[in-house]
Amino acid sequence: MSLPDLAENASPWLRKAGPEGDVVISSRVRLARNLAGYPFLTQASPTQRRDILHMCRRRILDSNLAQRMLWVDLSESPRLDRDILVERHLISRQHSRGKKPRGVALADDETIAIMVNEEDHVRLQVLRSGMQLDEAYAQADHIDDTLEAHLDFAYSPKLGYLTACPTNVGTGIRVSVMLHLPALKLTGEVDKMRRAAKDMHLAVRGFYGEGTEAAGDLYQISNQTTLGRSERQILRDFAEVVIPRVVEYERRARIALLEKRPVVVDDKVHRALGALRTARLLSSEEALYLLSAVRMGVSMGRLDGVSMAGINELLLLTQPGHLQRMAGVAMSGAERREFRARYIRRRLGG
Amino acid sequence: MSLPDLAENASPWLRKAGPEGDVVISSRVRLARNLAGYPFLTQASPTQRRDILHMCRRRILDSNLAQRMLWVDLSESPRLDRDILVERHLISRQHSRGKKPRGVALADDETIAIMVNEEDHVRLQVLRSGMQLDEAYAQADHIDDTLEAHLDFAYSPKLGYLTACPTNVGTGIRVSVMLHLPALKLTGEVDKMRRAAKDMHLAVRGFYGEGTEAAGDLYQISNQTTLGRSERQILRDFAEVVIPRVVEYERRARIALLEKRPVVVDDKVHRALGALRTARLLSSEEALYLLSAVRMGVSMGRLDGVSMAGINELLLLTQPGHLQRMAGVAMSGAERREFRARYIRRRLGG
Repeated sequence: MSLPDLAENASPWLRKAGPEGDVVISSRVRLARNLAGYPFLTQASPTQRRDILHMCRRRILDSNLAQRMLWVDLSESPRLDRDILVERHLISRQHSRGKKPRGVALADDETIAIMVNEEDHVRLQVLRSGMQLDEAYAQADHIDDTLEAHLDFAYSPKLGYLTACPTNVGTGIRVSVMLHLPALKLTGEVDKMRRAAKDMHLAVRGFYGEGTEAAGDLYQISNQTTLGRSERQILRDFAEVVIPRVVEYERRARIALLEKRPVVVDDKVHRALGALRTARLLSSEEALYLLSAVRMGVSMGRLDGVSMAGINELLLLTQPGHLQRMAGVAMSGAERREFRARYIRRRLGG
Repeated sequence: MSLPDLAENASPWLRKAGPEGDVVISSRVRLARNLAGYPFLTQASPTQRRDILHMCRRRILDSNLAQRMLWVDLSESPRLDRDILVERHLISRQHSRGKKPRGVALADDETIAIMVNEEDHVRLQVLRSGMQLDEAYAQADHIDDTLEAHLDFAYSPKLGYLTACPTNVGTGIRVSVMLHLPALKLTGEVDKMRRAAKDMHLAVRGFYGEGTEAAGDLYQISNQTTLGRSERQILRDFAEVVIPRVVEYERRARIALLEKRPVVVDDKVHRALGALRTARLLSSEEALYLLSAVRMGVSMGRLDGVSMAGINELLLLTQPGHLQRMAGVAMSGAERREFRARYIRRRLGG
């Protein structure tokens, strides 16, 4: 795998819809770790920062992490490469925009990404399609063990793993899922879900991560606190209670919509596909909105000849960075809107 | 011709686009007349009103007006029949909703409509497709002469024809054209046109007549005063100066749009056709808006396989009255939106 190849195809793990794929787009487990004997990055000297980077880089690439790992030195990567990694959820926007020495190690199937010198010294994540939090956690746990054999992580017997931000202290774990909730949005129940999630100390974010609105009816739900409970408790609550309940609500809302307002559903999903097949100019926001509606139509069995995996792929590939990589040139917003519309027409047979 | 047949097809005169049909949808000449020896209708007794109605009805039907004429007694017509006549611009909304004895004589090709007991005793109109004001006037003048041989119209040597509303006194003539001005609308120049029209004492109205907004970029322009100038002067100013200028502006705006923003034009017209072919619910307003955009695309040569006449026809047939007549049952607003979308999909191959 090389970075330039990325833009042409969706991440391999996303190409097949996973378990509960009608509602759950992806599962993610992230662990935050810091090296013992070094200050957190806010306090680290330039030399310490470089030492951390080199040590982590070498140990990660030397560890036998099952998959072939690629190292990306983000201080030297062009802006477009970094944008593509953000759009693929492989690095955070902050990590992309940082100025100091930093990098990321990626598995060639993109299920593993280990950021070095983001907010913590090491942030490793495992991504899977659909509802696969247990599998993602098992793999993250294994990687953590493997790395810990070579790296000395800061750990307090009383507090657990020490992290730069207090909300991560303890297990340092964040579990999250990306959910597609168009029916709950249509019926207005999504606000109830948001309030309930807040009461359970869960964070609800949009497709583009922290601080973004839920564009295209895509919601990312994650735990917010990690202190005082074990990884397995956090995971069990989240994966066996909270998310299955939201998935169930969404499915019931879809069934109720189809029973009570089938024409409203068909109007929405057929128009969306029609617009994608005919538009000559499409913004990212509108593309996301329309693809989301088509995804709902496919999952509800109202649209033929369009595959769920194809729509998932378009959600990724029609983002600005990916489009420009495909086009092979930097493009203005207007040029991107035109290129995006043409690309989608070609893919959806407009 | 019988009324029930009307809803199935567009008015025969509308089925072919007329001269300057890219911009001018239709031309209309209307003459207002009142019988000498009878008061205006606001002052007429019930007996006088009935006398006027019977006399006019008989004389109109007895006159040899070239075409076979059908008489519709509006006091006895069902609501739906009257709605259809309004939607075809054969009677005014006021005439449709009146309570007192009144009627209309219609030519079987719908180019002639003679309302009796609307605001004036007699209001005769001639409709033509495209820019055909001279032809419409010649025919209206001929009908006027023919009727005048049998009916004594109130006329003052000083003022001319006497009418119920002072704005019609004199020639009693109103000339109007229905224009399609999507490019002037897109460039914002339509407001300039409106102001210029106002300065020239012209009225600018929407598709649905007096007091309506210009839905679907359709504008009806007509003269407002008739006193002190001859029919031929009014007609010449309007048909040879004012309207050709607006038509020219619209054409230039279309050419400029295609040169400067071809993608914006294509985006608008292809999306509109896409929406018409995929929607499952369509309001009259949205249908009018989308059909107007498609009409622009056809006239600018940007859409294949769609005929101008077909779009003109849909503009007429997708109105509420016509839809209900086609369906054969009265329908709620929601039912009409569904039926309208299905009908348009069938016609446009969705």
